[in-house]
Amino acid sequence: MPTPRATRRGRRPGAPDTRATILTAARSAFAEKGLAGTTIRAVAAAAGVDAALVHHYFGTKDDLFLAAMELPVDPRQVIGPALAGGAEGAGERLMRVILSLWDDPAISPSLVGIVRSTMQPGGERLLTQGFVPVVLMPAGEALGIDRPQLRMPLVISQVAGLILTRYVIGLEPIASMPAETVVAAYAPVIQHYLTGDLGIRGER
Amino acid sequence: MPTPRATRRGRRPGAPDTRATILTAARSAFAEKGLAGTTIRAVAAAAGVDAALVHHYFGTKDDLFLAAMELPVDPRQVIGPALAGGAEGAGERLMRVILSLWDDPAISPSLVGIVRSTMQPGGERLLTQGFVPVVLMPAGEALGIDRPQLRMPLVISQVAGLILTRYVIGLEPIASMPAETVVAAYAPVIQHYLTGDLGIRGER
Repeated sequence: MPTPRATRRGRRPGAPDTRATILTAARSAFAEKGLAGTTIRAVAAAAGVDAALVHHYFGTKDDLFLAAMELPVDPRQVIGPALAGGAEGAGERLMRVILSLWDDPAISPSLVGIVRSTMQPGGERLLTQGFVPVVLMPAGEALGIDRPQLRMPLVISQVAGLILTRYVIGLEPIASMPAETVVAAYAPVIQHYLTGDLGIRGER
Repeated sequence: MPTPRATRRGRRPGAPDTRATILTAARSAFAEKGLAGTTIRAVAAAAGVDAALVHHYFGTKDDLFLAAMELPVDPRQVIGPALAGGAEGAGERLMRVILSLWDDPAISPSLVGIVRSTMQPGGERLLTQGFVPVVLMPAGEALGIDRPQLRMPLVISQVAGLILTRYVIGLEPIASMPAETVVAAYAPVIQHYLTGDLGIRGER
């Protein structure tokens, strides 16, 4: 007697395989050409499907990139509320969102895996050509800060160091600090990078 | 006719092989038991030599650890002058020293390799059981700051994030900033972690 489980095991016509084929093609394209050099059309062609089908399954190219990264959450949705309040207090709101994600034991391990991949030769494109244009720079724009191209990389340099020490390396006392202590320690620095006087006159 | 080159090729009595044998034994011991769990005597026994010979070649256990890591420089010597001036202005002095090392193309690649090793599973002990007790915590003591066990990890969390973005990942504009701009951007934050009000009441 066919059960739902048996049904799921059976091969359904097209859909799951097509999705997987598109994701494989997308990962190859992003790895080889980066986000900017990849088009939905090229991914569709490599996967042997119509571009409209790629849009149907995955949405925009940014959506496809995030799907290809297999993130456990969509970071744009997660930080959205923290951005909505504008630049004032954003350091603290962003810290809370980042910690709620990374302190979640259901999510943290896969994020650590992604960070480790990013550290390997070539893996940096995940960040420089993916996360930065898809998530970080739009976040800076949404906050309405001046010089987001300078300030957001400074922010990410402190967040990355926190993630490394707290979650990847496990350096004490940062690794075991209560979330509220981490927020208290880092939010002022993040806020400084977002809206403070950076002591840097020019801009690249 | 024996030339100096031929002589060097020939096996000299003991010395080079003994050094290499000790280093190999030391790396195994540090990897297995960490810095605290390793003794000069155990390394000597594993290498089949006298403990006095290990001291003769490498000095203290901390020296042996740094030698086993094959660092291109001894970080304690490099940061020594920056620590000598005390806590005031140390943020800027430390930033200059860190940049002078990491911006040096003769040194930077091997440091990047070490950082990548640290990011791999198990590699974190290089930092937590080696660099932190051998270099970082003595630096905090030398500066005479309060709560060095909290402040120095905060410092390293920002320095690590800077190293990642500037040298490992190559995130712009941080990767191409003139050294003086990097110092201007980060020294105030490092100084804040060293001597500022952290907004953290207790201490772990």
